[in-house]
Amino acid sequence: MTVKVFLDEKDIPRQWYNLAADLPTPMLPPLGPDGNPVNPEMLAPVFPMNLIEQEVSTERWIDIPEEVLDLLYRWRPSPLRRAKYLEEALGTPAKIYYKDEGVSPPGSHKPNTAVAQAWYNKQFGIKKLTTETGAGQWGSALSFACALLGLECKVYMVRISFDQKPFRRLMMETWGGQCLPSPSETTNAGREILKLHPETPGSLGIAISEAIEAAVTDPKGETRYSLGSVLNHVMLHQTIIGLEAKKQLKMIGEKLPDVVIGCAGGGSNFAGLSFPFVADKINGANIRIVPVEPTSCPTLTRAPFAYDHGDVAKMTPLLPMYSLGHTFVPPPIHAGGLRYHGMAPLVSQATVEGLLEPESIPQLECYESAVLWSRTEGTISAPETSHAIAAAIREAKKAKEEGKEKVILFNWSGHGLMDLTGYQAYLSGRLEDFALPEHEMQESLKSMADLPKPPMNKSGKW
Amino acid sequence: MTVKVFLDEKDIPRQWYNLAADLPTPMLPPLGPDGNPVNPEMLAPVFPMNLIEQEVSTERWIDIPEEVLDLLYRWRPSPLRRAKYLEEALGTPAKIYYKDEGVSPPGSHKPNTAVAQAWYNKQFGIKKLTTETGAGQWGSALSFACALLGLECKVYMVRISFDQKPFRRLMMETWGGQCLPSPSETTNAGREILKLHPETPGSLGIAISEAIEAAVTDPKGETRYSLGSVLNHVMLHQTIIGLEAKKQLKMIGEKLPDVVIGCAGGGSNFAGLSFPFVADKINGANIRIVPVEPTSCPTLTRAPFAYDHGDVAKMTPLLPMYSLGHTFVPPPIHAGGLRYHGMAPLVSQATVEGLLEPESIPQLECYESAVLWSRTEGTISAPETSHAIAAAIREAKKAKEEGKEKVILFNWSGHGLMDLTGYQAYLSGRLEDFALPEHEMQESLKSMADLPKPPMNKSGKW
Repeated sequence: MTVKVFLDEKDIPRQWYNLAADLPTPMLPPLGPDGNPVNPEMLAPVFPMNLIEQEVSTERWIDIPEEVLDLLYRWRPSPLRRAKYLEEALGTPAKIYYKDEGVSPPGSHKPNTAVAQAWYNKQFGIKKLTTETGAGQWGSALSFACALLGLECKVYMVRISFDQKPFRRLMMETWGGQCLPSPSETTNAGREILKLHPETPGSLGIAISEAIEAAVTDPKGETRYSLGSVLNHVMLHQTIIGLEAKKQLKMIGEKLPDVVIGCAGGGSNFAGLSFPFVADKINGANIRIVPVEPTSCPTLTRAPFAYDHGDVAKMTPLLPMYSLGHTFVPPPIHAGGLRYHGMAPLVSQATVEGLLEPESIPQLECYESAVLWSRTEGTISAPETSHAIAAAIREAKKAKEEGKEKVILFNWSGHGLMDLTGYQAYLSGRLEDFALPEHEMQESLKSMADLPKPPMNKSGKW
Repeated sequence: MTVKVFLDEKDIPRQWYNLAADLPTPMLPPLGPDGNPVNPEMLAPVFPMNLIEQEVSTERWIDIPEEVLDLLYRWRPSPLRRAKYLEEALGTPAKIYYKDEGVSPPGSHKPNTAVAQAWYNKQFGIKKLTTETGAGQWGSALSFACALLGLECKVYMVRISFDQKPFRRLMMETWGGQCLPSPSETTNAGREILKLHPETPGSLGIAISEAIEAAVTDPKGETRYSLGSVLNHVMLHQTIIGLEAKKQLKMIGEKLPDVVIGCAGGGSNFAGLSFPFVADKINGANIRIVPVEPTSCPTLTRAPFAYDHGDVAKMTPLLPMYSLGHTFVPPPIHAGGLRYHGMAPLVSQATVEGLLEPESIPQLECYESAVLWSRTEGTISAPETSHAIAAAIREAKKAKEEGKEKVILFNWSGHGLMDLTGYQAYLSGRLEDFALPEHEMQESLKSMADLPKPPMNKSGKW
């Protein structure tokens, strides 16, 4: 039995898939501070116009430029693997397949959009990109992409992560990126925070503010900001994952999966794998599509669909999405990439439309699953990815109970070699679960009280 | 142009290649403390008999058991890649191919022999393996292998590395291995050292002594010791690398390489890639085959071919090999896996026979090469691997000067994600080269003065 399915470079998908073209109701627009829809020109100081066009596009298929494919070939197509050894350990009749996104040089799915964004920026004449990073996955992916294209890269890394994860910073520097602890002295936003709170550990919200300020204040206008999740064009670039997976399943004569799973923080790795299958579902296929989030950060499973800011500092437009409120501070779980109050608008709307079946899983079950994975399949998974593994194991056990040979497909979004302290905590028995009491959630939801509400009827249509 | 060549699982090599069968002169035997050849029975308390048989075999081809193939399929066949982006940066007419051994779950070539050794031990009824590890590559590979087979694994890790590289230890523990700082209180050897030197940073020599003692003193006789390099059966298991590479070059219609390169510490990743090509060379092919070592630990390039102990504590038999003397302490270069005073007997004898053309490269040139690599090919290389990259770049530049379209093949033996501090030192300008003054080398060579000498004439024959 073959456990790896490789797709030839010549068979790589040559177009990205845009779910916005197929959703039953059109996407709601982002809103500006005045409550009116944001128009593309308003975003021009932040993003290059070619990416803004992708952001608002309703075309179903968008060509991947040859030069972007050439960047992707360094690690794509990524392998589709069968988790045969895990199946055996579980004694399940289910077949578990997974896309291995850990093969990219930075070790996750993030470079799929990083190289595309860097390339479009370069085409637009941009010389330098800025961004923020929490745990460091995105910052290293963008540094990597900029190295390949000869762009400058400046990453504002949340100070506490900067101090705790020096290896992530060293990855960025090896690729020539500049990594600063945020808040920094290089921006007004940073300096103001430091004046008030010199000892602050920083936050993603502050880091976003600094990165955007650094982009829009470049006197030469040659700098733009780059975001690693949430936005439509990021989801778009990630769909190559699911498009490849479809071809690979076909290559081995496998049917459409019964279940498709991805962990969801901002939504991009989940969207990347699942959106091409959501298209099948819209066309009538019987597929269960599951975004998995941490129980302690239950955006899709407990929060409302609302208009909210993407950041704490309210610098971003209002996005139509499930949100715990922009003031929500997720507990310190190890899956840093899933600690986000909101969710990509495209993933949010697909949920509103009833196309997705979100689940939440507590981190102890995730680590238990990841350790079983490491001792059967062999690889060490990122803490974020462990959520998808845990959900796949739940489905495989259900298939065993039902005696059904289901096909399960999930996204192995990255390796955990830079995130071993979570395993240490788990193996030593020090890891704990975090609940989110209802009253705490209600408190953070209040931060959205005065914001416009998206129109919606009971069937989820507007 | 395709940059990745995948071999189907069904086309994986099904036999290992044993260079001992083809060397012009038979291998010299290891010698015991009395100066007489060691016989297999004397090794029985340390290794299982099925591996001892492989150690002394002169059969050219040895079958890989189906069950070992099934273990290897988790990551093998490994990709053959073309370093097209580096070629473009160098402007060379040479074609640079490399085997990507970084795809194994522990991230290097080491698991090729770890899973085979663990399987043969389990077949022999062994329940537990012990070993030593310096930087941690080997210890994590053996922990990984034992996890897959349900064996216990105990790793004695040199104390200074244990303290400095907690992530390596966490990898081992995630796979269920037990990792102890050496010297430890669990062995006589460890306790004696700790009594004399309570603050010792430890050494590979001490750790080997502890691991062997822990194996041979198991009252149930269910424990054996496992070594990750140097010995013949380890070289044997690694030849799958070169055998795959041959098939992959053939798949794309490529000729035999003009140059084959691997970094060499104990010799195993170099041997694994190169031995199948050494066979071609013995049969008349014109191939330049280059083991690359650090200038500061110049075993093949400056030391004599001699009989020497494999360890500082003189616990091992005398091996016929190039050696700087078992008392040699290599400078603290970052390529910990290349800090070894000796060299695999098979690699040593192939050198004596004139089949290899060893080179040494200083570490600054290696890091400069590895940083260029990371910004063109994209991946971050292990410090050991950077030596092979530096040698490949030297060859590619030579090909440019000569205007020749040479085919260069090297072994990308592993990634450097757990070894980023060396990059930090390089990028900040703090990294330095180490010379080995002749008088210092002569001093350490004295430790071999009273040992038997291998017979050898000027043409390298005995």
